[in-house]
Amino acid sequence: MTREQHIVIDAVEPSLGCGRYPVKRIVGEPCRVRATIFRDGPDAIRAAVTWWRDGGEARNEAPLEPVNPGLDRWEGQFPLEENGRYRFSLVAWTDPYATWVDELRRRVEGGSTDIPSALVEGAKLLEAAAARGPGADGARLSSVGRDLRRPGLAPGQAYAAASAADVVDLMRRLQARDDAVTSDPLEVVADRPRARVGAWYELFPRSQSPDPSRGGTLRDAEARLDDLHDLGFDVVYLPPVHPIGFTHRKGRNNALHAGPTDPGSPWAVGNQHGGHEAIEPSLGTVADFERFCRRAHTLGMEVALDLAVQCSPDHPWVHDHPEWFYRRPDGTIKYAENPPKKYEDIHPLNFDCDARAALWKEMRRLFQVWIDRGVTLFRVDNPHTKPVRFWRWLIEDIQARHPEVLFLAEAFTRPPMMKELARIGFTQSYTYFTWRNGKRELVDYLTELTQSGMQEYFRPNFFANTPDILHEYLQRGDRPAFKVRLTLAATLSPSYGIYSGFELCENVAVRAGSEEYLDSEKYEVRHRDWRAPGNIRDYVRLVNRIRRDHPALQEFTNLRFLPTDSEHILCYAKATADRADVVIVSVNLDPFAAHECMVRVPLEELGLPSGGRFVAHDLVSDQRWGWNSFNYVRLDPAIEPAHIIAVER
Amino acid sequence: MTREQHIVIDAVEPSLGCGRYPVKRIVGEPCRVRATIFRDGPDAIRAAVTWWRDGGEARNEAPLEPVNPGLDRWEGQFPLEENGRYRFSLVAWTDPYATWVDELRRRVEGGSTDIPSALVEGAKLLEAAAARGPGADGARLSSVGRDLRRPGLAPGQAYAAASAADVVDLMRRLQARDDAVTSDPLEVVADRPRARVGAWYELFPRSQSPDPSRGGTLRDAEARLDDLHDLGFDVVYLPPVHPIGFTHRKGRNNALHAGPTDPGSPWAVGNQHGGHEAIEPSLGTVADFERFCRRAHTLGMEVALDLAVQCSPDHPWVHDHPEWFYRRPDGTIKYAENPPKKYEDIHPLNFDCDARAALWKEMRRLFQVWIDRGVTLFRVDNPHTKPVRFWRWLIEDIQARHPEVLFLAEAFTRPPMMKELARIGFTQSYTYFTWRNGKRELVDYLTELTQSGMQEYFRPNFFANTPDILHEYLQRGDRPAFKVRLTLAATLSPSYGIYSGFELCENVAVRAGSEEYLDSEKYEVRHRDWRAPGNIRDYVRLVNRIRRDHPALQEFTNLRFLPTDSEHILCYAKATADRADVVIVSVNLDPFAAHECMVRVPLEELGLPSGGRFVAHDLVSDQRWGWNSFNYVRLDPAIEPAHIIAVER
Repeated sequence: MTREQHIVIDAVEPSLGCGRYPVKRIVGEPCRVRATIFRDGPDAIRAAVTWWRDGGEARNEAPLEPVNPGLDRWEGQFPLEENGRYRFSLVAWTDPYATWVDELRRRVEGGSTDIPSALVEGAKLLEAAAARGPGADGARLSSVGRDLRRPGLAPGQAYAAASAADVVDLMRRLQARDDAVTSDPLEVVADRPRARVGAWYELFPRSQSPDPSRGGTLRDAEARLDDLHDLGFDVVYLPPVHPIGFTHRKGRNNALHAGPTDPGSPWAVGNQHGGHEAIEPSLGTVADFERFCRRAHTLGMEVALDLAVQCSPDHPWVHDHPEWFYRRPDGTIKYAENPPKKYEDIHPLNFDCDARAALWKEMRRLFQVWIDRGVTLFRVDNPHTKPVRFWRWLIEDIQARHPEVLFLAEAFTRPPMMKELARIGFTQSYTYFTWRNGKRELVDYLTELTQSGMQEYFRPNFFANTPDILHEYLQRGDRPAFKVRLTLAATLSPSYGIYSGFELCENVAVRAGSEEYLDSEKYEVRHRDWRAPGNIRDYVRLVNRIRRDHPALQEFTNLRFLPTDSEHILCYAKATADRADVVIVSVNLDPFAAHECMVRVPLEELGLPSGGRFVAHDLVSDQRWGWNSFNYVRLDPAIEPAHIIAVER
Repeated sequence: MTREQHIVIDAVEPSLGCGRYPVKRIVGEPCRVRATIFRDGPDAIRAAVTWWRDGGEARNEAPLEPVNPGLDRWEGQFPLEENGRYRFSLVAWTDPYATWVDELRRRVEGGSTDIPSALVEGAKLLEAAAARGPGADGARLSSVGRDLRRPGLAPGQAYAAASAADVVDLMRRLQARDDAVTSDPLEVVADRPRARVGAWYELFPRSQSPDPSRGGTLRDAEARLDDLHDLGFDVVYLPPVHPIGFTHRKGRNNALHAGPTDPGSPWAVGNQHGGHEAIEPSLGTVADFERFCRRAHTLGMEVALDLAVQCSPDHPWVHDHPEWFYRRPDGTIKYAENPPKKYEDIHPLNFDCDARAALWKEMRRLFQVWIDRGVTLFRVDNPHTKPVRFWRWLIEDIQARHPEVLFLAEAFTRPPMMKELARIGFTQSYTYFTWRNGKRELVDYLTELTQSGMQEYFRPNFFANTPDILHEYLQRGDRPAFKVRLTLAATLSPSYGIYSGFELCENVAVRAGSEEYLDSEKYEVRHRDWRAPGNIRDYVRLVNRIRRDHPALQEFTNLRFLPTDSEHILCYAKATADRADVVIVSVNLDPFAAHECMVRVPLEELGLPSGGRFVAHDLVSDQRWGWNSFNYVRLDPAIEPAHIIAVER
């Protein structure tokens, strides 16, 4: 007889959007699960987590243990051994034998009179389980069952036999789970570590020429990889490298009309030389691109490519696939606009068109083409202007074959859409970090990112600058401001990036009040002296080395802000779970003046002897101080605006 | 062509357990709904809530409006006009016309050159909608469409015609919702007001005899209804009234063996005179019970019955349906036990038995029998020892025919099960209130009940005492303690109750350290002098009248604690949404000594002029004081331990 279901499994964690979305984890780390599990009546229950690879058959199981019996809270974990998607559910069932053994103990201790009858009930449970057990196990249970039926068996002996560890264990395994309840499956994405940790460097290949008389090529960019590797970067990230349209091409500083030699914007994709699959001839060939990727891989670096899903009026699709675009009443293809603004050098694609099935498949093919050429990360331009379900389909489809491929969403829009893009599969996301420069707003924003629940699925990539964003803070604050923002980006978030020129402290805007660069690389070729005086290359190299040396900085949710008595000095600590690595960062957010404060360090929390002292080793100045729970900090931007302190015991 | 789905509907409220459970509301009140709704791109969207009666066909719709555009938050509401279950979902779709009108405005203001083309696009939208519109509406839209196609139409005129209020409104109604997204249906139970508000009085009919020489009857109980009505009670609540078993009948003060005249415990249900359907002969007849109910109804009161799902060894089912019980190996039927404790006067029912289908149906029939006799509320004894799914089935089944019937769960167990019973359908629940006597624990517990999310489904019924619980606070604190607990129960929670004897301040326990009454009515007949000196009848009557006069006290989630500088004085305010009724309660929790404090009153929050004064009318002492935002309170338990202040302007 199957028994009625009695057990309730509730509040399962981790779970996102009632199971509609996967949570994100890192392969090699365990996935901890928790749930509230209970039943009517006093019977003992058992619970376990079962997990399997998405689509796979093999089921595994690990037990859950009660962690807070007063609240019926259970906990367990399972390993994420492969890069890819997992599903898990929780299962719970009644354990009649454990219930019976506990009652028997109380009967014996209480000197009950009806023990013989109870023993027969136990024997029946043992015999039922024995029938399901292989030879030796079954035999063992049957023999205990026989003992319990033996007339005149002393209660104490009976309990000893029934509660023998091996018997209890066998019964746990062999008893029928005839009232088992299983929770709905939930999904977990096990990404490779690069999904969480990486230092990104963005560059325009066309500006990498060492020769001022010509534009740069992919070969020139390849030649810079050793230097970027030396600076400690993990990811080289390229804007679109495709042929650039001529029709309505933008001139320098976004002029409406381009001069004869203006190279145009890489985001106006496509001309007679090809579209999203092709490479701008002046940059080189597909072979050059593949060489570039191979060289990067040889140095232990990866290549990220910006994929902008839009076309110039000269893109081959405009001729071959007019059905993929929006049309005007007169039949002509629509350019992008935000009335009254027009972007005539860009044709948006119509993801609603009748032929969308073909368009979606073609987009998928394009991503595959670049994966085959060596790209392992895609920075997607404006994903929030295309249907979310398109991205979900695309990312799940590609990661089913290439779980190692990661997607970064460049969606500067309202929070719900940014969160949704992360929930449906984007590995990482651009953030508002660029616009968070004050102490309060940094604390509030980082607290939301690390503690509001977003940490289950939204992985920030903190860019200190981008080709589109030169924040006023950098424009005004000069060199100290660049060091401040680099320190914050690189130590607050395990993933961070800079766009080339940052290390030279380039800070001139096209006009007052604008975040656009003067003579922006988006519209022209730049030639730079990478050793120009005033550069902060050494500081960049130092910070990237510190990030590598200190696992505490390779996590995100371990961020903890420390109280200070200064509105200018931001102080925070990060520690590994085992407290073996503890880093304390202090940053003076004011690039113009020195400030001082007292910093309170929560010793116990950081695994330090309470009331004890420790050696604070500032990895920036290489000084060492004796610190305790309350410490003096002075930061002069003219010297160094930050301490990055390693705790030494 | 259907368009791709673009819209995301997220974080819908109210929703409980991902839609697995209904939320609770009161008929006649609107059900407010909120959600986060957004789409890719800049297009305008519309949203609405649709609702229908559970099982019903008719769909209604009301618009949602954006309440926080920066977070894409939308809000709306629908009326709950009938007592019963409702379902609702949210629907959202793109509004191409609104998008187009807004773009047209910007084109016109920006002096665009391509307005004629834009006007044709608008005309097409108008004509498509016109095709779906009845005569006049369709004609109106077509004519505007024609206007827009008129050569040489001035941009300003075109915009004026296109944005005319009636046209925009018609388009909202007639445009195809061809990318509409609908959220999963969610459930709402619209209970009648008694589900939230009521003063309960529990009595044993057998103790209502005015003649000390005999036990009481239902007729005697009926005779007391006028007095209870005069005291202001809404619900008369009876322990089981069924025949009581003789086998292993319990004697006075829970003695293992009953004397010949001992009446036994009403919870040992059933003997040769019948079971759960029958009435204990010494109490009277079914006709008497029906009279009792009718009289109560005539007085505007209701009758609650305690239904205990268990049997005495003499219950007819033991003979007629042995298959519904647990059996020992020797075939005999099992009594209840919690080893080594035995409850031989009780046989639990086996809800797992093979014949459970019949057992469940019989239980349902029994509830129906008592409903037909006039019972409108059931207090269910120990529901947490029976399968949750049984209760869900039973309550949904009965309320489908009798939505007016309410269920009170008497489950004193761990929080998850108490919450689950409320989520699956119990209208009200017993709580830990009886054991919360200190200031901190009262504030913490009430904050959880009113603000943690429990308020969506868990309706507390605060009992100041029960036949099983005479708290030490009452045993020690004497008369002031009874007034304190009555005030707290009656003003903190809209539903509260006392068990008879409370108004006489009965406070003698069977032994030190026990919460059981001495000479408990559970095991014997009691005779009381309802006018005995020291009774607090007048205070009970006063408090119940205040509850009726002040709608602020008929709500629960409007509770707000006010800061005081005393650990003994608990102070809280309740206000109606319109602030027309504001009540401020101050209670001295120390029954032994007078205490004083300053109380801070949040004037604005309570709708009082900030910095202004108001008249505080203490309804207990009938005194009036001039109060402002910071006031002196002194409470002497020897006089009155509480102020119940009505704010007068």
